[in-house]
This record gives sequence, structure tokens and C-alpha cells, in this order.
Amino acid sequence: PEEMSKECDLFFLALPYKAAMSLVPLLLKKEKRVIDLSADYRIKDKDIYKKWYFEIHKSPDLLKDAVYGLSELNREKIRNARLIANPGCYSTSIILSLAPIMKSGLIASDSIIIDSKSGISGAGRKLDLSFHFPEAYNGVRGYKPTSHRHIPEIEQELSLLAKSSVKISFVPHIVPMNRGILSTIYVKANKSTDTDELIDIYKGYYKNESFVRILERGKLPDTHHVIGSNFCDIGLEVDDRNNRFIILSAIDNLVKGASGQAVQNMNIMYNLKEDLGLESRAIFP
Amino acid sequence: PEEMSKECDLFFLALPYKAAMSLVPLLLKKEKRVIDLSADYRIKDKDIYKKWYFEIHKSPDLLKDAVYGLSELNREKIRNARLIANPGCYSTSIILSLAPIMKSGLIASDSIIIDSKSGISGAGRKLDLSFHFPEAYNGVRGYKPTSHRHIPEIEQELSLLAKSSVKISFVPHIVPMNRGILSTIYVKANKSTDTDELIDIYKGYYKNESFVRILERGKLPDTHHVIGSNFCDIGLEVDDRNNRFIILSAIDNLVKGASGQAVQNMNIMYNLKEDLGLESRAIFP
Amino acid sequence: PEEMSKECDLFFLALPYKAAMSLVPLLLKKEKRVIDLSADYRIKDKDIYKKWYFEIHKSPDLLKDAVYGLSELNREKIRNARLIANPGCYSTSIILSLAPIMKSGLIASDSIIIDSKSGISGAGRKLDLSFHFPEAYNGVRGYKPTSHRHIPEIEQELSLLAKSSVKISFVPHIVPMNRGILSTIYVKANKSTDTDELIDIYKGYYKNESFVRILERGKLPDTHHVIGSNFCDIGLEVDDRNNRFIILSAIDNLVKGASGQAVQNMNIMYNLKEDLGLESRAIFP
Amino acid sequence: PEEMSKECDLFFLALPYKAAMSLVPLLLKKEKRVIDLSADYRIKDKDIYKKWYFEIHKSPDLLKDAVYGLSELNREKIRNARLIANPGCYSTSIILSLAPIMKSGLIASDSIIIDSKSGISGAGRKLDLSFHFPEAYNGVRGYKPTSHRHIPEIEQELSLLAKSSVKISFVPHIVPMNRGILSTIYVKANKSTDTDELIDIYKGYYKNESFVRILERGKLPDTHHVIGSNFCDIGLEVDDRNNRFIILSAIDNLVKGASGQAVQNMNIMYNLKEDLGLESRAIFP
Repeated sequence: PEEMSKECDLFFLALPYKAAMSLVPLLLKKEKRVIDLSADYRIKDKDIYKKWYFEIHKSPDLLKDAVYGLSELNREKIRNARLIANPGCYSTSIILSLAPIMKSGLIASDSIIIDSKSGISGAGRKLDLSFHFPEAYNGVRGYKPTSHRHIPEIEQELSLLAKSSVKISFVPHIVPMNRGILSTIYVKANKSTDTDELIDIYKGYYKNESFVRILERGKLPDTHHVIGSNFCDIGLEVDDRNNRFIILSAIDNLVKGASGQAVQNMNIMYNLKEDLGLESRAIFP
Repeated sequence: PEEMSKECDLFFLALPYKAAMSLVPLLLKKEKRVIDLSADYRIKDKDIYKKWYFEIHKSPDLLKDAVYGLSELNREKIRNARLIANPGCYSTSIILSLAPIMKSGLIASDSIIIDSKSGISGAGRKLDLSFHFPEAYNGVRGYKPTSHRHIPEIEQELSLLAKSSVKISFVPHIVPMNRGILSTIYVKANKSTDTDELIDIYKGYYKNESFVRILERGKLPDTHHVIGSNFCDIGLEVDDRNNRFIILSAIDNLVKGASGQAVQNMNIMYNLKEDLGLESRAIFP
Repeated sequence: PEEMSKECDLFFLALPYKAAMSLVPLLLKKEKRVIDLSADYRIKDKDIYKKWYFEIHKSPDLLKDAVYGLSELNREKIRNARLIANPGCYSTSIILSLAPIMKSGLIASDSIIIDSKSGISGAGRKLDLSFHFPEAYNGVRGYKPTSHRHIPEIEQELSLLAKSSVKISFVPHIVPMNRGILSTIYVKANKSTDTDELIDIYKGYYKNESFVRILERGKLPDTHHVIGSNFCDIGLEVDDRNNRFIILSAIDNLVKGASGQAVQNMNIMYNLKEDLGLESRAIFP
Repeated sequence: PEEMSKECDLFFLALPYKAAMSLVPLLLKKEKRVIDLSADYRIKDKDIYKKWYFEIHKSPDLLKDAVYGLSELNREKIRNARLIANPGCYSTSIILSLAPIMKSGLIASDSIIIDSKSGISGAGRKLDLSFHFPEAYNGVRGYKPTSHRHIPEIEQELSLLAKSSVKISFVPHIVPMNRGILSTIYVKANKSTDTDELIDIYKGYYKNESFVRILERGKLPDTHHVIGSNFCDIGLEVDDRNNRFIILSAIDNLVKGASGQAVQNMNIMYNLKEDLGLESRAIFP
């Protein structure tokens, strides 16, 4: 990296598990900027990091400087950041789906339940019997129903938005497809709100965002419509029999959920057009 | 049916939508027994039927006699019934998953959230662009997030079990596979219970049942393990950070969720061995 | 079209079956240029057209002017054509795979056997029980083993290349995937040739082509590597035990096999850079 | 095995690659009977074995006693055999498809071309990047176009049937599904034969067989119709423009192509009903 670092100002890190926290301090010392795709700098609190990742953090002093790279929420901090912690794929789909209602007092913040369905590329390319074709094709299953490592970053960011401590239940599932995450979110409303109002709140919140699309009443997201793109599609419906909001969102885990959002963050950091290199539309079928 | 009905004592009805309620009265008049696979006799209250099915019931007087054919819950009534309303596929997976805790006071009965994932055979063989191969393959989506017609039968049966009115939120999803339903259920616990205790409650409840399998701690159901069989697999985990129970269950929608359960009911009605014709194990892969 | 045609010089036609041959004469009369994606102008001989399509051609006088729009083979004619008959998807993958050896005397031209495997989008979006998800998923089958309508256009073009009458056996198959055609072709060699020589012949033939990629020895095409792109990948191996050439080729039926090639032809007609709008790389996974 | 072998008379061997040829001699010495699912005893000629498997055979003296366990062709030898070499999955589908015409002089025996399409369970459960879900889903590819190890056993058995040396071209392909093999076979006819005649020849040849189903004119096999069963479905069509026979056959590679045929052979060896334990019908969808 000695050589390389002479020429580059920005580093994208997609390193093996837990390797980033050793390398990042060296890069920052050389005045480089870093977008880290790992989880190492997502969690602000080193004790929470240790609790969920079973590891003592190697550069905890950098945690306060790292900016959680969810472009739509932290754009101004991202612009000047030295270190971006690029969000997890599930986390992106979930935080974007909840941000518009966290600060409003609209919901009971202890009522959030998230049920996500992911394609298999989310697990990476490492061989594992669970993702051997005949084990995965033509079936569906949940996993880690109380212990997925995206939980602490989701809770951290939702708590910041709500300005109070938020806890969630989150169960991820594997469905037999290559790409895409669909998250279905259930929250208790604090006061009666109808679907049109709810959609208006979301449209208002994201009115200047080009990558978040709030669907019209009666439309629901389908991962097909975002694959290959950096879009996050959000559909909304009020369950008025139970006074709950039902929020569904779809992203491509490999684009908005990973490298696409990293490029979006780079564009922000360098004052480039935010969709530079991200203009592609969904591939369907 | 004049001719036919001379020779048969029992009729399985798998008729086009809303046709059963015209035919069933004729068959019962001739002293026949009927297992109806439609929804026509599942809802006891004709007003609720009308609200969800947009139709005035044609033989409402039979509703009180019809037995909801969830074999494990209503075995004794099924044995002597003239008319069985065979449950819906989603309903089977959901009611079996909740029955052991409905009467116990263990849970907040207004907290039930159900997220189901179904293979495409659940939609039948009728042509529809949504199930044209390229529209369905390699993608996932939700549908009818507040209005699926299995809701009233689920609420009716859960209310009977709880001896109080129960309402649920239920969002079904379509995943690209042929068969199987996985339901993930979230409920608030009324008191602290750990995973082992919860598993024990379920094992006790189903201790005499051959088609319900309660999985050991740490195991979760996979639709692969039930396809082609009449089994319902149930996995359990307490989310103690949020004091919620997380319940996952898997069935084959075409067997335990439809014709398999109809056969099981027939076996009960004729005092046959309950698994006669249903001994087959899951096909995997 | 009266209005429209004032402004446009070129028309892409993707019309319902057999509609093009009524409209094209009108457009040509108005000095327009046409790229027709149907089969109506692919077959030069109106009797052969009638034999395979069971219809009398409505504008047979235009058949001699129409240029078969396989860009790599007919580039100069395409440049000045008024009417392009854009090739069928199977035909594209097959003719490109055989062109380099048709004129050489290298093969027995009566020995050509072609076994193609197509994804389901090749059948279009029209509803049909064969392409209802549960009928197509998790299975494979052949269809029309002696009567597929791409046969006459393939034989016509191969005969032109060979300068003698060529007949083929062609069996198409449906595999459970969205896009892509893999064609496996078997031909008897007239003289002993090894795999390296064969690859050299292909590389030479396509040395100026940007959309045909001849794979290195030991590599075989995979539809994954062309999906979303206008590439045709060709892999080669000599079966020296039997003195046969085995040729495998992969295209995306919706790009090089349809609209991508139409765009490529337009670029040629207007002296634009040939890959304008077609720079996209394959999407994988 | 010392202990075990006291109680068992018959051994099914499904051992790691090349392990059977060390164990089988010990079992035979103890007067046991063996059905070996590996390739070790399929090839009669130890030199051909060495050429294709790159290994010197460890018990070549047993090769002459081993019976190639294709039940329909070798039933009488199987009945009294001590050692059955259970056929490969591709081989089963191919040899059954060609047996009725090999001895007849009907075909040019040097013209046989076989294009097979297999589901992924054919590759076993060993982890391999090629069968990692995202590498295999939504794509198709060929492999080993001149060197698959089922070639020598197919040529050996076809040569026995033809009473002359037969060589084949055989290209296997991987399609994204779990189970099933579809083989499409092309052969040159020696004399003009129409489809009805051809079907009659096959029906006659297999008239006493319960597991081979010859389809009616115009019907073609689909792997869906054999999955979970021991059936081999064969469809036939004469390509009279080219004087070729086109033969398509479908089996479940895990049943008729492996353990199902092993059970069928056991039933023959013990004079049991041949379909004992094999009565199951296809699972569809």
C-alpha cells in the first residue's frame, strides 16, 4: 500500500472479516480517505461492538470520527469525512424504511419488527453447504432470529433518529434467488394515520432524493424492479384494524446495499454528481 | 351427482370459487358427508364472511354445523362431523404455530404479527401474469398486506383458543419456489420465558401428534424438510432483548396445507389410522 | 403512423405475429427505413415462407430487398438497407457459431446437428400454461424437434455461406432460467483439425468484431457471462475420437438475440459507433 | 464389516471415489453379494478403465464377473450375479434410449450424438464453486464435451447391443434445477422409417417393462414427469428432412439413475416384485 497510497486519495476497503480495523489507522495517518465496506467502524460503542462481534476493537479511537455511510441520512457528514463505514445491506433497506417516522412521535419505538428476505449473493462467494445449489433451490428458511450482526447498527442509527433508545426484533430469511432484499416492517402507530397521510410523510422526507422511490398507494415493491440499480423502493400501507404501519422496501443488496452506495458516498465526498456511475436501470427479467 | 352419490358416503369438494355453498346443502340432504376444500364454510359468522368475501352466503344455516378441519385441534368434532371446512394453507401453518400459547395467558393477544412466505403453487394453476415464469423467478414480493382472506379464519380460530377476541397483522409473500410455506410469527410475551421453557410448552401440547414436529433449540424449519409430506415443523426462539417469542413454521401448502390434511380428516372420520396414505417423507433436494 | 412518420426516418417494428408484412410496404413507400423484429422478411423464398409459416406472404416483392440483419455477416448490406429483417434469437447464436467453417470445405455440410437451450423470456410475455412458474421451474424439456420456425432462416444463411444447399437438425429446449441461449453444435469434420487450429480459424474470422468473443482452449461459454450484454461467446473443442467439431455458443436472447442486435444494426445504418448504447457488461450473478 | 457381514447377504456400496475396488474382493470372498454404485466395475477392459480414470484397477480379475446393472437389459444376468456394477445416471438414460435400435441395423452406428442436460444433484453434495447457488442459478453451460467418464460404459454397452464397435459424441450440460436428466439423441437412419414405425419398435422392445414408458406420437418427455420415480420416459420423432431419428429421454438421476435402479436390481436378485419400494409416482410441481 506504500506505493499505491502515493497516488490514491481515496481507498475502498473490501477486506476479509475484521481486517479493516488494522489497516485503516495506517491509511488515515497518511491523510488518505477511506470507505470501508466492513462492519468494523459502523458501531460507535466499542462495548457493543465486542458484544456482537466477539472481538476487542483494535482502533476504538477512530470510532467517533467514522461516519455511517447511509448517503441519504448523513450526506453532509459524509462530504467531509475521512472514514466512511459503509452500511450493511439489510441495514440500508431497514433504516431508509424507518427514517421518516422515527423522529415524529408517530410510532411506538419499542414496537418495531423487521422480517427481511434476502437473495443468496448476500452471503458472499465463500463455499458453504447452506448455499450449495440443491440445498438452497426451491426452499426458504430463516436464520439467526435474534442475533444477526446488523441489529446493533440498525438500533444505533434508529436511536439517533428517534433521539431515544430503540430496540428491534429482526429475523433475516434466505430465499432462492440471486440478488435483492425485501424487508417487511411492522410498527405500532401512536395515533391514527391513514395510508395517504403516511405516503405523504415519506414523499416529503425523501423529496430531494433520487435513489429512494416512494410507491403510490396500492403498489408494493418487488426486488425485480431494483436489481442492478441503486434504488430503494418503499411501499406503505396502514393496517387500521390493528393501528400498525406496514412498510415494505426493496434494494439490490449488491448495489444500494454495498458497492453502489459506496460509489454514491464517493460522489458526495468529491462533490460529483451523486448518481455518477449509478445511472443504470433495473434488469428485468 | 345423483348417480355418484348413491355409491359414495364421503365427498371431497375442490370446486371453483364460491361453488361449494350451493352444492353442499344438496349433499348433506342426501346424508352424505363432505370435506370442502374451499373457504365457504370456514367462517362461522355470515357477516364476517360477507365482509371479506364480498358475497352473501347461500347456506348460512350450515355454518354452525361445519367443523373447521384443523385435525390436531378439532379431532373429536371432526370424527363425527357431516361437513368439514378444510383450512387454508396459510391458516394451517399459522394456527398450529400459535395454538400452544393462545390459552395460556403467556402472550399479549393483540401483539401477533405474522409474515408468511409461500411458493407459487399456492396460487393454483390459473394463468396470471404474476406467475408467468420470468415475472416470478429470481424475485420476491409481498401482496395484500392487510386484506388476505385467510385473516378472518385465523382470527376466528385463535379467538376460540384464547377465549377472547384476537386480531392479527398478516402479510403474505411470494418467493420463487414451487411448494412450501414458511411463516415467521412475532408475539409479545406477558412474562419472561426462556427458549427451553417455550419449547417444552410446545412439545407438551403436541406430544401425541405425529404430524407436528417441534424442533430442538437452535434448529429452525426449512420448507425443504416438509415438501411432499404432511408434516408441520415448528422452531422457536425467545427474543429476550425484546421479550418476544419468535416462532417459525414450515408446511407443504399442497399437503398439510390442503389435500393431505383433507385425507387426515377423512382418516379421523372413518376411524382409520391417521397417517394412512400420508406416510411419505419429504423429497429433498 | 401518418403523423409519426413525418418526424422519424427509421422505424423499429415489434408487432404482433404476421402484422409487419402489411405495414412495411406503407413505410417504405414514404421513404422510411425499417428494422423489423418479426420473421416476415427473413425468408427470401415466398414458398419456403408459406411452408413454415402457413401463410401467403403479403408483400413478396420486398423479400429480395430485405437484408438479413446479422450484423457481423451482412454489415455492408445493412449500411444501405431500407429494410432489415432482424434475425431470430436461436438463429443468431447458431449462424455466428457456424459461419467461420461454412465456406471452408472443412466440414460435411449435411452433418450439422444443433441442440439449443433457452431461458423462458424467449417465449415472450404471453400467458401460456407451459410457462406458468410451477410448470417450468425445476424441470427441462425439448419442443418442436423437427419443426421450429428458425430452421428455414438458419438453412438459408448457412447455404449462402457454404454456397451450397445446407440442411440442419435443430432441437430447441426450455430450461428454467430467465434469459440466455446456449447452443451446442455438432458437425463432422472433413479433415483432421485440432482444437488449436479450429480456435485460430474462428479468431481469424472474427478478428475485427467487438461482440463475438472466441474463448481460449479449455474454456466453454456460460450464459451467465453474456446476460445483459450484446456479446456472443463461442467455445470450441475437436472430438478427435469421432472427427467432429463441437461448438458451444452463448448469447442473451433479449440483447444480441433481439433488440441489442437491432440497435447494432441501427448504428451501422447511421454510421454510428457500432457499440453505441450497447457498452453494458454482463450482470452476474 | 466383519461383524456386519455376518448378518447381511447383500451390500450396497456408495463409497468415495475409487474405494470400492479395494473392498469388493473382501466381500465377495465372504460369499456376499454386492451392488456397487461406483464406476469401478462398469468397464470390462482394464486398459479402457485406466485410460478414462487414470488409475490402475486393483481387482481386474473381478471385471469379467461383474454384471452391468441396467435392469431392463441384463435382468437374467443380474438375477444370479455376485457383483452388480450399477450404471451411471447419464448412461442409464442414454443406453435405454438407444437399445431398441442398436441391433436392428436401422441406424448408422457411427452417427450417434448425445446432448444431455442434468440437474445439479448429479454432482453430489461436495462443495464446489460451480455449484454455489449464485454461480449456477439462472444460467446454463456445457462441460467436458469430449471427456466425460460415462462415455466408455455407454460405448461398451452399445457395442454389445450392436455386436460391433460403437463410438459416440456426448456433451453433458448443467441446468439450474435440482434433479433430472434429459438426454436428446440424434442418429442417422439407415433406411426410411416414419415416427409411427419408430414408436412401434420401441413399444415392442419394452413391452414387458414397467419402468420404461414410450410416449405417444407428438409427446415429449419432461423431467417433471419422472422426478421422485424410477421411470424412464422416451419420446421419439423422425426428422425426415435429414433422415435422422431424434430420441429424447428423461429420468430422475437420483432414482432410476442411481439408488432406484440399485433397488430394482436387488429386487431382481432376490426374486422380489421388481417395483417393490419403487411404486412412487412423480412429484410435481
